Amino acid sequence: MNNKIEEDKMISVGINGYGTIGKRVADAVARQPDMKVAGVVKTRPTNEARHAIANKYKLYANNLENMKNFTDAGMEISGTLEDLIEESDIIIDCTPGKVGPANKELYISKKIKAIFQGGEKAPIAEVSFNAQSNYRNCIGKDYVRVVSCNTTGLCRTLGIIEKTIGIKKARVTLIRRGPDPGNSSKGPVNAIVPNPVTVPSHHGPDVNTIFPNMDIMTSAVIVPTTLMHLHTIVIELKNPTTTEEIKELFKKTPRIILVKASEGITSTAEIMEHARDLGKKRGDLNEIAVWDESINVIGNELFYTQAIHQESDVVPENIDCIRAMLSITENPDESIEMTDRAMD
Amino acid sequence: MNNKIEEDKMISVGINGYGTIGKRVADAVARQPDMKVAGVVKTRPTNEARHAIANKYKLYANNLENMKNFTDAGMEISGTLEDLIEESDIIIDCTPGKVGPANKELYISKKIKAIFQGGEKAPIAEVSFNAQSNYRNCIGKDYVRVVSCNTTGLCRTLGIIEKTIGIKKARVTLIRRGPDPGNSSKGPVNAIVPNPVTVPSHHGPDVNTIFPNMDIMTSAVIVPTTLMHLHTIVIELKNPTTTEEIKELFKKTPRIILVKASEGITSTAEIMEHARDLGKKRGDLNEIAVWDESINVIGNELFYTQAIHQESDVVPENIDCIRAMLSITENPDESIEMTDRAMD
Repeated sequence: MNNKIEEDKMISVGINGYGTIGKRVADAVARQPDMKVAGVVKTRPTNEARHAIANKYKLYANNLENMKNFTDAGMEISGTLEDLIEESDIIIDCTPGKVGPANKELYISKKIKAIFQGGEKAPIAEVSFNAQSNYRNCIGKDYVRVVSCNTTGLCRTLGIIEKTIGIKKARVTLIRRGPDPGNSSKGPVNAIVPNPVTVPSHHGPDVNTIFPNMDIMTSAVIVPTTLMHLHTIVIELKNPTTTEEIKELFKKTPRIILVKASEGITSTAEIMEHARDLGKKRGDLNEIAVWDESINVIGNELFYTQAIHQESDVVPENIDCIRAMLSITENPDESIEMTDRAMD
Repeated sequence: MNNKIEEDKMISVGINGYGTIGKRVADAVARQPDMKVAGVVKTRPTNEARHAIANKYKLYANNLENMKNFTDAGMEISGTLEDLIEESDIIIDCTPGKVGPANKELYISKKIKAIFQGGEKAPIAEVSFNAQSNYRNCIGKDYVRVVSCNTTGLCRTLGIIEKTIGIKKARVTLIRRGPDPGNSSKGPVNAIVPNPVTVPSHHGPDVNTIFPNMDIMTSAVIVPTTLMHLHTIVIELKNPTTTEEIKELFKKTPRIILVKASEGITSTAEIMEHARDLGKKRGDLNEIAVWDESINVIGNELFYTQAIHQESDVVPENIDCIRAMLSITENPDESIEMTDRAMD
């Protein structure tokens, strides 16, 4: 049985930027029953561009000038970003942070909707997006920003607690990975780097783009690891709850999983080994992993520790964001369920 | 001018264990005007034992059986731990964590005072020690435990805030180094390890051995670095203050220094490079380094980030602890000033 809708009724998604996030978004789009990849944009004929071709994604250059580099490298190129826009119902902008504003001018002139990533500042979009928190705010919008991997992780777990029990205030330390695993040029090799050195970091205000009234303060450091970010979280609750109630809450919430040190998952390394054993492409983990043993309610405070797969947690968010902006469904749960089933 | 008192009036200090802490305590004792190193104990004739000999410290084996290994290795050995005890007014036990209880039985039978390190559990001693926080509680005591490097760092900065402004509650995340720099066998290499996975970690209760009534909760992770620990700290204050007032407070408190990212100290790596430039032996930093830019008072909350040189911050504490236990002075400031001047 093929649940896919007819080819010409599918949402045609152009992906501008085929790096860490872009290549994953392309694969996620390709798996959705209601979407297809119109094509992907690269600036240079890299090895990743060869993967795009191998995946049968039509390859576009970011401009006419760069097209020649692809043909010189023996790669078939279908045109430029402007050509891709003609083929697309929506563009997912997965270009490196801070390139977005220039691209946005093009999208506006071409009258095409676009999704930006969390590396851009919030004002680039009409609204920031987290599927489980504010899907409905983004319905029909033209320019939306999916918040960063860390903010997505915070929104998922804080969001369900805010909704169910109520948050008086949240105080979080983010222990961030240095580079991604496929990057050999960045550090740190042997240091802990407050980044930013000022407190609060920008992550708290970024959560406020989704939850404007949440009292949240964040400190952030970067450490010599590539696998995941980790958050230590302290929440003052508005209403009473129990450790067990929080565990049950996380268990039944999509895109959150509980992991147990008692079962050998003692660090981010074992979490990602678990993900590899699950067999998803690239060993990705789209869910936020919360350590079962870390969850502790003491008085009106809740403590827990969670880990974020920075390369992949925002990928399903981009898919849901497409459905919201194109008003495919007004029900976030329906989109989330469709996205996750297709990616499983 | 030689301020040293006569040799036979000096406190004779035996050091049981000549590893990371023991070798530093020996050097610190040797520099004090009122103390001398009676000798140091090693279990095996390692390279560190050769350094002890080169430093002209009399070398003792932990027992008769092991003495032969030293003579076989061509190292002059002066006897056993029991012989060293005869030569000493006090023993600093710097053996690896958890060996202390067996050693304590020997110290009791030999009627000699002893200082234990933070790797031992608190009940091994009559009282735990931090010079700036509870020196007077330890005057004349027989068995005292100098708290661990992390707890020492917390006691120094929390202590002065508690004393001056008052702490309603403190919530801390400890980002701990993996192994020490001279250890090539331990990890993690590429992971963030919640350690312990449960919240709170043992560090909060350990601070309570010094400040019994302080409301403090700690989370702790281990990361792939060797240089320093780092703490992100959130304090709810009892009384109003300002960011500037906290900076002034830290500036005038011994054993705390402010470092500035704006002057290039952007991580633990640059802090330790600063320490190496100061020229102390082994590039040690006995002070707790607080990032100037991280200090931020918002409403009744204070935020800051500090780094701890785990190999050396407890060393001056051991020196002051000797003076307290032997009732050399009842004034902590006098001992602290004497210790720090001698180590400078």
